[in-house]
Amino acid sequence: MNPIAGVHLAGIASGLKASGKPDLMLATVSPGTAVAGVLTRSSCPSQPILWCRDILPRGSARALLVNSGNANAATGKEGWQVLQESVDAVAYILACDPRDVYIASTGVIGDVLEPHSIAQRVPAVHQALSQTAWTDAAQAIRTTDTFAKGSSQHAIIGDTTVTINGIAKGSGMIAPNMGTMLAFIFTDAVIAPALLQKVLNPIIRDTFNSITVDGDTSTSDTVLCFATGTASHPPATRAQLRDFRRALREVCHDLALQIVQDGEGATKLIETHVIGAKTRRHAHQIGLSIANSLLVRTALSHHVISWGRFMMAIGKTGLPVVPERIDVAIGGWPVVKNGHGLPDMATAEIENYLRSESIVLTIDLHQGTAQHRVWSCDLTEGYITINNNRRHRT
Amino acid sequence: MNPIAGVHLAGIASGLKASGKPDLMLATVSPGTAVAGVLTRSSCPSQPILWCRDILPRGSARALLVNSGNANAATGKEGWQVLQESVDAVAYILACDPRDVYIASTGVIGDVLEPHSIAQRVPAVHQALSQTAWTDAAQAIRTTDTFAKGSSQHAIIGDTTVTINGIAKGSGMIAPNMGTMLAFIFTDAVIAPALLQKVLNPIIRDTFNSITVDGDTSTSDTVLCFATGTASHPPATRAQLRDFRRALREVCHDLALQIVQDGEGATKLIETHVIGAKTRRHAHQIGLSIANSLLVRTALSHHVISWGRFMMAIGKTGLPVVPERIDVAIGGWPVVKNGHGLPDMATAEIENYLRSESIVLTIDLHQGTAQHRVWSCDLTEGYITINNNRRHRT
Repeated sequence: MNPIAGVHLAGIASGLKASGKPDLMLATVSPGTAVAGVLTRSSCPSQPILWCRDILPRGSARALLVNSGNANAATGKEGWQVLQESVDAVAYILACDPRDVYIASTGVIGDVLEPHSIAQRVPAVHQALSQTAWTDAAQAIRTTDTFAKGSSQHAIIGDTTVTINGIAKGSGMIAPNMGTMLAFIFTDAVIAPALLQKVLNPIIRDTFNSITVDGDTSTSDTVLCFATGTASHPPATRAQLRDFRRALREVCHDLALQIVQDGEGATKLIETHVIGAKTRRHAHQIGLSIANSLLVRTALSHHVISWGRFMMAIGKTGLPVVPERIDVAIGGWPVVKNGHGLPDMATAEIENYLRSESIVLTIDLHQGTAQHRVWSCDLTEGYITINNNRRHRT
Repeated sequence: MNPIAGVHLAGIASGLKASGKPDLMLATVSPGTAVAGVLTRSSCPSQPILWCRDILPRGSARALLVNSGNANAATGKEGWQVLQESVDAVAYILACDPRDVYIASTGVIGDVLEPHSIAQRVPAVHQALSQTAWTDAAQAIRTTDTFAKGSSQHAIIGDTTVTINGIAKGSGMIAPNMGTMLAFIFTDAVIAPALLQKVLNPIIRDTFNSITVDGDTSTSDTVLCFATGTASHPPATRAQLRDFRRALREVCHDLALQIVQDGEGATKLIETHVIGAKTRRHAHQIGLSIANSLLVRTALSHHVISWGRFMMAIGKTGLPVVPERIDVAIGGWPVVKNGHGLPDMATAEIENYLRSESIVLTIDLHQGTAQHRVWSCDLTEGYITINNNRRHRT
């Protein structure tokens, strides 16, 4: 990923993780940076979520500090002290308002860190700042992720080409109806915070909020988008953001799909495209019901045409569908027509298609014109094994 | 189980299942039998559900015919014809109103049977009727169940002792917010259908609707309760049903727990008791969120104290809880106090307790006096393996 003017970042192994793996990330953004974000809707949020929720309405940012390995969730007053000391340490070293310092933490839920544990490591990570350390930063926020996640796009605003870089982490405890896992997006575009937030919201809905690994919503889900305003164009109007919107959507889509592909134990990416719905919300809800169904996900892990399970998952939403109108296709091959299994479906071709790493399911409700896509992964013994071994985490 | 005056039943291997296992059950009940029931809320219900939904308001019954192996769901007009022929065959042999013939089917979703396939087997199962064939009947409705499920209680109405016998099936595609899997309850008590339905509803809520195996709601869930009225007491008033209510609740509770204990791949029964809630609905919703969480269920399968995952599951409901007030205990041992993990929790004792086959989790929200219990099972590799192999079923 290319540098973005105004953004410096670092990811280091600071010794917070007993394993010695990278665990601390710092990004600084130039004065005047606008920020927008979406945070978990969990009613048991982590301390960093409470902090970000407080400061986000200000719309300005100077830094982002993220630790992995400990979520600082369900940690009460002691956790709040850890957070405050971390914020203060960053504000001190940058000589900025503490309310411009964003914090995220991911890892075990409920373990209380020593008050200074993160704060005392801030000078070391600050020392390592550079304009090019995108991969280091993405590495430092990993927990059970098997690879570091990043995505980049260019967009044109007026006559100026701006850059959008994003990094993310996430592999388990991934479910929509929330912010999402951690994703941090940086751009040099000149956009006011309120407008940035407006642009971001529907994109989050269609990307991070349309993925699921296990239906379990984290206490720490965070998406933050920083616009340094270092590009040369005048402040963007809504109308000028057409291409920026496209590019931001691409970055979010790419990061969201990387999270699902890295779903714990996953062997395939499953796209469920619900069309012909009365409303987009119906399509979204039905898509998620299929995507989260254990029976659908176990069947697909072993390339089994379990179309009856799709009908079950559609039905369990309780939404007013008309079963006799429903068509289902797998990879474009029709399997259900008017609510009936096709006796002459291309079984061999479909079963072969189901062996691929990426599967598209299309559900046509024939009730209207709304549609929505969601992405999930299959459910394998791997998920069970991974989650047997750890005590708890976000 | 003891006979119930007015009830004859049979379960046979009629050849519907290729495996040659028992697959057809018939019960006849004497003229004047009252019936109440709760059916799936799936919006893609099976043909038998549509039929039962139509006739249930009449409140009278003469027979119940159940086949296993094929759900007659998502089968359209052909499936409706199979159903009609089955109803007619039973009505003909009993010389009764077809609208007094109840039907349930469980098994593969979407496979269309030959129109006469069930109807032509009715004489054989009718031939086998007896007052004692409770086990045969429970056997004939099994699909992936590893054991036949039954439960019996006596109750006193006025001066008369009545009997309540119930049988059930279910092991996967079990989730609440619906009717439930198949459960059929018979009693000789004299109760009007409307009163029977009123007694049944809250019991279903607290038993069958408070269990979950995989969060996947079947297209075919059915609970029917038949009261033959053959006991000697005069028609019961609401006030006289105190002991009957208790006994019916016991039977439903017992059957519901047998279903969870037989959950696909399950090694333990998990009771989640949410107390101190603002409303019973909150307690129910939070209980289910914990019970359905893949992360909670995988942790418990390997005796891991994953209390952070409970906080996650409580939080993901989005309900207005106060995290700093939440207490959690496992088997009576406190693990969370005021939203914090206890540093001195009895780790060794708790981990040992988690190895038992039955685990009780207590969540105290400290927000009110409402409470609710839900029952679920752990999630193991066994669930994945069982569900890899089959195409689809209810």
